[in-house]
Amino acid sequence: MTKYRIETDSMGEIRVPEAHYWGAQTQRSIEHFPIGVQRFVWPASIIRALGVLKKSAAQANAVLGELSPDIAQLVVQAADEVIQGRLDAEFPLVVFQTGSGTQSNMNANEVIANRANEIAGAARGTKHPVHPNDHVNRGQSSNDTFPTAMHIAVASEVTKHLIPSVQSLRNTLAQKSAEFKDIVKVGRTHLQDATPITLGQEVGQWVAQIDFDLAVVNRALEGIYDLAIGGTATGTGLNAHPEFGDRAAAYIAQETGLPFRSAPNKFFALAAHDALVDVSAALRTLAGGLMKMANDVRWLASGPRCGIGEIQIPENEPGSSIMPGKVNPTQCEALTMVCVQVFGNDAATAFAGTQGNFQLNVYKPVMVHNVLESVQLLGDACQAFNTHCAVGLAPDMGQIQHNLAQNLMLVTALNTHIGYDKAAAIAKKAHAESSTLREAALALGYLTADQYDRWVDPATMTGPENKRYEP
Amino acid sequence: MTKYRIETDSMGEIRVPEAHYWGAQTQRSIEHFPIGVQRFVWPASIIRALGVLKKSAAQANAVLGELSPDIAQLVVQAADEVIQGRLDAEFPLVVFQTGSGTQSNMNANEVIANRANEIAGAARGTKHPVHPNDHVNRGQSSNDTFPTAMHIAVASEVTKHLIPSVQSLRNTLAQKSAEFKDIVKVGRTHLQDATPITLGQEVGQWVAQIDFDLAVVNRALEGIYDLAIGGTATGTGLNAHPEFGDRAAAYIAQETGLPFRSAPNKFFALAAHDALVDVSAALRTLAGGLMKMANDVRWLASGPRCGIGEIQIPENEPGSSIMPGKVNPTQCEALTMVCVQVFGNDAATAFAGTQGNFQLNVYKPVMVHNVLESVQLLGDACQAFNTHCAVGLAPDMGQIQHNLAQNLMLVTALNTHIGYDKAAAIAKKAHAESSTLREAALALGYLTADQYDRWVDPATMTGPENKRYEP
Amino acid sequence: MTKYRIETDSMGEIRVPEAHYWGAQTQRSIEHFPIGVQRFVWPASIIRALGVLKKSAAQANAVLGELSPDIAQLVVQAADEVIQGRLDAEFPLVVFQTGSGTQSNMNANEVIANRANEIAGAARGTKHPVHPNDHVNRGQSSNDTFPTAMHIAVASEVTKHLIPSVQSLRNTLAQKSAEFKDIVKVGRTHLQDATPITLGQEVGQWVAQIDFDLAVVNRALEGIYDLAIGGTATGTGLNAHPEFGDRAAAYIAQETGLPFRSAPNKFFALAAHDALVDVSAALRTLAGGLMKMANDVRWLASGPRCGIGEIQIPENEPGSSIMPGKVNPTQCEALTMVCVQVFGNDAATAFAGTQGNFQLNVYKPVMVHNVLESVQLLGDACQAFNTHCAVGLAPDMGQIQHNLAQNLMLVTALNTHIGYDKAAAIAKKAHAESSTLREAALALGYLTADQYDRWVDPATMTGPENKRYEP
Amino acid sequence: MTKYRIETDSMGEIRVPEAHYWGAQTQRSIEHFPIGVQRFVWPASIIRALGVLKKSAAQANAVLGELSPDIAQLVVQAADEVIQGRLDAEFPLVVFQTGSGTQSNMNANEVIANRANEIAGAARGTKHPVHPNDHVNRGQSSNDTFPTAMHIAVASEVTKHLIPSVQSLRNTLAQKSAEFKDIVKVGRTHLQDATPITLGQEVGQWVAQIDFDLAVVNRALEGIYDLAIGGTATGTGLNAHPEFGDRAAAYIAQETGLPFRSAPNKFFALAAHDALVDVSAALRTLAGGLMKMANDVRWLASGPRCGIGEIQIPENEPGSSIMPGKVNPTQCEALTMVCVQVFGNDAATAFAGTQGNFQLNVYKPVMVHNVLESVQLLGDACQAFNTHCAVGLAPDMGQIQHNLAQNLMLVTALNTHIGYDKAAAIAKKAHAESSTLREAALALGYLTADQYDRWVDPATMTGPENKRYEP
Repeated sequence: MTKYRIETDSMGEIRVPEAHYWGAQTQRSIEHFPIGVQRFVWPASIIRALGVLKKSAAQANAVLGELSPDIAQLVVQAADEVIQGRLDAEFPLVVFQTGSGTQSNMNANEVIANRANEIAGAARGTKHPVHPNDHVNRGQSSNDTFPTAMHIAVASEVTKHLIPSVQSLRNTLAQKSAEFKDIVKVGRTHLQDATPITLGQEVGQWVAQIDFDLAVVNRALEGIYDLAIGGTATGTGLNAHPEFGDRAAAYIAQETGLPFRSAPNKFFALAAHDALVDVSAALRTLAGGLMKMANDVRWLASGPRCGIGEIQIPENEPGSSIMPGKVNPTQCEALTMVCVQVFGNDAATAFAGTQGNFQLNVYKPVMVHNVLESVQLLGDACQAFNTHCAVGLAPDMGQIQHNLAQNLMLVTALNTHIGYDKAAAIAKKAHAESSTLREAALALGYLTADQYDRWVDPATMTGPENKRYEP
Repeated sequence: MTKYRIETDSMGEIRVPEAHYWGAQTQRSIEHFPIGVQRFVWPASIIRALGVLKKSAAQANAVLGELSPDIAQLVVQAADEVIQGRLDAEFPLVVFQTGSGTQSNMNANEVIANRANEIAGAARGTKHPVHPNDHVNRGQSSNDTFPTAMHIAVASEVTKHLIPSVQSLRNTLAQKSAEFKDIVKVGRTHLQDATPITLGQEVGQWVAQIDFDLAVVNRALEGIYDLAIGGTATGTGLNAHPEFGDRAAAYIAQETGLPFRSAPNKFFALAAHDALVDVSAALRTLAGGLMKMANDVRWLASGPRCGIGEIQIPENEPGSSIMPGKVNPTQCEALTMVCVQVFGNDAATAFAGTQGNFQLNVYKPVMVHNVLESVQLLGDACQAFNTHCAVGLAPDMGQIQHNLAQNLMLVTALNTHIGYDKAAAIAKKAHAESSTLREAALALGYLTADQYDRWVDPATMTGPENKRYEP
Repeated sequence: MTKYRIETDSMGEIRVPEAHYWGAQTQRSIEHFPIGVQRFVWPASIIRALGVLKKSAAQANAVLGELSPDIAQLVVQAADEVIQGRLDAEFPLVVFQTGSGTQSNMNANEVIANRANEIAGAARGTKHPVHPNDHVNRGQSSNDTFPTAMHIAVASEVTKHLIPSVQSLRNTLAQKSAEFKDIVKVGRTHLQDATPITLGQEVGQWVAQIDFDLAVVNRALEGIYDLAIGGTATGTGLNAHPEFGDRAAAYIAQETGLPFRSAPNKFFALAAHDALVDVSAALRTLAGGLMKMANDVRWLASGPRCGIGEIQIPENEPGSSIMPGKVNPTQCEALTMVCVQVFGNDAATAFAGTQGNFQLNVYKPVMVHNVLESVQLLGDACQAFNTHCAVGLAPDMGQIQHNLAQNLMLVTALNTHIGYDKAAAIAKKAHAESSTLREAALALGYLTADQYDRWVDPATMTGPENKRYEP
Repeated sequence: MTKYRIETDSMGEIRVPEAHYWGAQTQRSIEHFPIGVQRFVWPASIIRALGVLKKSAAQANAVLGELSPDIAQLVVQAADEVIQGRLDAEFPLVVFQTGSGTQSNMNANEVIANRANEIAGAARGTKHPVHPNDHVNRGQSSNDTFPTAMHIAVASEVTKHLIPSVQSLRNTLAQKSAEFKDIVKVGRTHLQDATPITLGQEVGQWVAQIDFDLAVVNRALEGIYDLAIGGTATGTGLNAHPEFGDRAAAYIAQETGLPFRSAPNKFFALAAHDALVDVSAALRTLAGGLMKMANDVRWLASGPRCGIGEIQIPENEPGSSIMPGKVNPTQCEALTMVCVQVFGNDAATAFAGTQGNFQLNVYKPVMVHNVLESVQLLGDACQAFNTHCAVGLAPDMGQIQHNLAQNLMLVTALNTHIGYDKAAAIAKKAHAESSTLREAALALGYLTADQYDRWVDPATMTGPENKRYEP
């Protein structure tokens, strides 16, 4: 049977499970917000960020004389346990709570205070020697701490999970691109056969796109490094030491190894979260790029006999519960599903970002939830795609050469020799008669066999060397 | 040089071009909202709807004794000219104005009053004998008239433009489906070869989807037939005769031939536009269905030599400014671009739909704009696609039979005879050795040549007749 | 130390934890799709739906002579355990896997086969007497079973969780509306003071909107009752008994108590999921309605001293970690955050819905995930909002009467007596001089004190009785 | 009666109106794509961009010896007329055409060729001396020219229309912020009264947000300066001189005064348009910021008597057709409607951006259409809002001081003196008893009257000077 103790807050008394460190406000939130309980508990990244924040705040307050060294040390010690993940079970709250994240800020205050008091030999719930508001939350308000924790969590996950995962995939593809640089194949525009390219160029497009998208993500991080801390309730910094924001941000930078700094306008840092919206958009751009790549991969691998079939991808699982021997591009499917999820998450984030009023945007939890989910999914899916698909990507030379040989768009090489109109006539004749371009060209008498063989060379059509031709 | 006259409203005097019927409030809107001027002037459907509304309101007021027969007759006569499109140039206002559409309601009131007064022999700007507010707007407020006009315009355009266009395309496809019912071809799931289907079944899926989507659109119209008229400023119906809403709605139904009725809850009819959001969502569902169809068409027509190439579509234009003889699936491209536009328009509409406060949603103009644009684009694009693509869609029998013959998934017919595991072994052997299924099956000794030929019959795999097999 | 056994599938052997019932394909999925692992494991509703489906399929196959009674009985018994939730831990797979849900279908097949074999006294992994493909998956393909399970799960959760929750909230509000029917207050349009309404009318708007939105949701369920079962791999029904779809659907209807039926066009049922898109859109419309209501509640409750303050809502938690005594509209915040999440989920669903190709849409898992999440969140949030906010909603009579008394828009009652222009002059004079309307009216001499008192009566301005006035 | 001439292309002959310069392919597009005809004709920015492109290409080809000086000069002269807007009527095509923009590229080629030939004294339709493909389109393909024109148009409109408009609004607000720096007022978080701020700080938040958002827009332009030109059909640069891309980009930079350059990876520049998606997202972020500001403005101006009423905004138009004297925040409404439109446009753009295949994204026209529309609307709306609302924004000192005086959250100043718990008790007592904070504080005996008066000073609570307090 669960044992309880009494905790109090400004609303009065409430029973809290004895086994837990959380206090009255956390308990009230559990009871009032049974929304999506299993799925929407905060992930470790937010809990850790709250720990980093509370530790850094205590350090800043100590050095500014706002907390006694003893109290500060107790807070730091308890916060370190939060950072280390030892108190994860003490953070039971979900995303859908108060829109400022107040209850999760208080959850951190309560857990750290109770754990600190325990370290100090006091009973839980005494609020002594460490008080959740007066000490752990010293110089802070949920309105500045929660967005600070949001930024810490997002920057950490983007830099430590997302970017390395995407970069690994990018590097695999770059290597493939180099490997395939001499494989000439049909190009395709409008899904229709077009002038030739190399497989290396085709894969290289994906690399260029991922590089662009990663740059967009990196750029968006700039705004994330600005921290709300120091703004307290409305942005004025009321009840915080004037240097508190700068000092706390410096400790946070030190703790995380990331270039955090105190935001220049605290009112903006509380009332809107455009930096998060911007990161969300960057994730969406990245998702769009990955979706294009994954779609190309599965179309190029389509078949095995009635599709395009120019590349082969690893066969990881049986593809069908009814069709024996079928193998499907499942990594492409998982990744593209992640991409549409990221689009959805971004739509929620951007919508929420518009809904601030006056000194506060009260959609903070749902915004950071969606961004963190996108970061995790993209990171995870790129890792899986890299390992289980990209590294095994290989050309099907037979199909590539078969397709290239019959490509009518090789006729384009003739434009600069005989003009667009005659070249078009050749292609149309070959198409209508199911003949080769060469046959049609000679039949029309627009050029000699020798000229045809000299001018129409798929390999030279794919690169800069093709660009020197006769006047 | 433009000549002006003075018009007045409750803000005072203002100069208005003498050549025009509009009055002070229209003029103020022109001057205060130079936003997207060329592109965002209201389309004819809205102008006509305002005419229908003002005419019907005058008729209702006359029969209820709220307007004298003479005044009512003048209003009806001028409103008829609006309905006939003879005064389109008198409606210069754009979407981005006051969020209630007040200025466009006043534009209608002013134009009709001035035109009515002119008919009555009075000068423009005199507001006598017909006053824009006291007579043309009698028993009305922008808050109930503008959403009424929105519903009239949307229902008219959906029923008179969109549905017939989509239905024509659907009928073409249904005829193609019947025509192609005996053409057996490879099926494709996950872009990979799968068990056979008929081309009739493939095209029939598009028909079934369009039928479903049209049903969704039709269902959504139900909410649109509820009219706000009679609610006046806040929903209470203040200053309107108690029977005004019902009477006006009946006249509107008579004028348009559509089953309009007075909305049961006027407060809801002013403060939210969920019926429009619902129509917008239905258009989005339809766009999704059309996008799937158009994508299938262009992939099936991909090639001509290095793609799937199982169908042919009309060659309408040269496809490339550089590649001679190239032909592209341009109708598919135009239609799918329309589809993504509809997705965007729907996103705007649904967002706007959430932003009502208290007794009014002040995003009315942008909501109806997006819905009407989607209706027009989908209707136009389906017409073009039908005429210039669907009617000319034809099978490429050579490619279809070539693909079918080598399809490894025919092995699925063996499941019920030799079990999934052995069937899988056959398919994998054939794939690995680039042999035929028959060769692999016999080599593995799982069945006799005679059994193979009896059991593996693509045609019987596509229909109900395939479902009787040995125990 | 974990013990393992060897399981096999058409790809070969693989080690599976001995303690678990799942087999080779489930294990491969675990290893290949470590994407969002904690958060994205399928919820109970999907697992239960797979159980219902497999049980019903076995029953249908048995009655059609496709499975022996013994085998069928074993499958039914094991599937019943799945339905009862006793095997939840055997379903470890996540949303982001193969886009057809094949691996989750195989997960169900493997778990049921192994559990059935265990019941029959055989060892796990033997596939005997019950084979996961040949028996549990008899007459089925992932391509028809997974969308069937999707529909079962969605219909169940919508009817058993969402609708009752929303209905409870709606009923609370309807009761409040009745209770408040005589409380006259200022109306507001454009956020500006408008003609009076009753608080009952204001709350009644929310009820009317929820009623409309619930009707939209109910309507959308119609499409969900169509089941793909019987279509097998591509829609042709290959390898299924011709009556299998109908029979299985009937058993599913019986098991769930919901009016499921076999879909009329199986090709559409596999290749597109417009019914899900339609439900998703309905959820979005509902979310839009709830958002409007929740926003109204928090604005009406804003203050306590410097806002609108016309209603009071329960004080559930301390509102601020820094501002003592502050109480916030947290239930409104949680609900509106849910609403924007539903918008995001819908965006993902609708996007995914467009991306089908040929005979399959391979975004099935991400589509049903988003719909189920929205259903859960809306249901949960409405319950919480009802219990912790709506039931305690009460008028602040002092503030309501204070606001009503000074509302300049009462002047509108004079339109029908003295005309719009003179009424406007009165309002403008009162506004400019900060006087009362009555003072301004008398000063302008447009009517007598007696007339003013008789004509300007807020209470009669709110209802039908106001609509009888002098000619 | 319209007169016609015969023009030809690779599809054969077609009648073209004699009065126009366009040729066969433009005419085919007119006939095949009657989609949204009135509204979706390309705006001047695209036409001008095509002119800049064709002029620059001719200059580059001339200097590289690819075009004779005479031909090049004729092309330049005709292109200059396009740039000057003298040939706008020759560009009749709409957005919804081929997805590569080929028909608009050919429209430019045809018009310029025919006009050039006319200048040279030849008849229209002769293609001599200037050929639309071989000369005007020399070294180009639609696949690289159209995205080049897209970038030219977007960069020009963003830098010349959008940014100056937003900057003007920003400057007005910055000036207001400075002007209002000493006006102390109630802060609001969660819509509830919070600790005091200055009106200067409140307006300053909007400035900070716009500054952030403009930085995001400026950053996104970086990607737009990369031009596809030189990639020709698939990215290989086939048929273009190797230096053509660099040279043409340099001429474009010179013509526009913007830092355009040749894109480093041409395959990426054709197959995806992430730079446009990124700009679109930046516009969305900006729209979100403007929406927050505009919402704040209308809520702060709400009333005039029953709302918050702390600021006054210009009265531009009569607000209601039924409520005399009503004035509404119409500029806020127009601007927020624009913002939701931008959200919708962005959703379409980003969706389209994912749908490239292989060497081409064929949603180019719909992407640039949405971005340009958003740019125009935001620019127009910010101008209107600035002129007709922001410059007239003024405080209502009476209401500001009335609200501030009764704000219970002034109690927060006591936290650092008596602790959070006692401060909360004071606020709760005052709230419950409708007393002042001072009365409640003294009644509870937590501090003296003198202390209260010293510690609770709204003005010092708003700025850094408040942060020095007793230990």
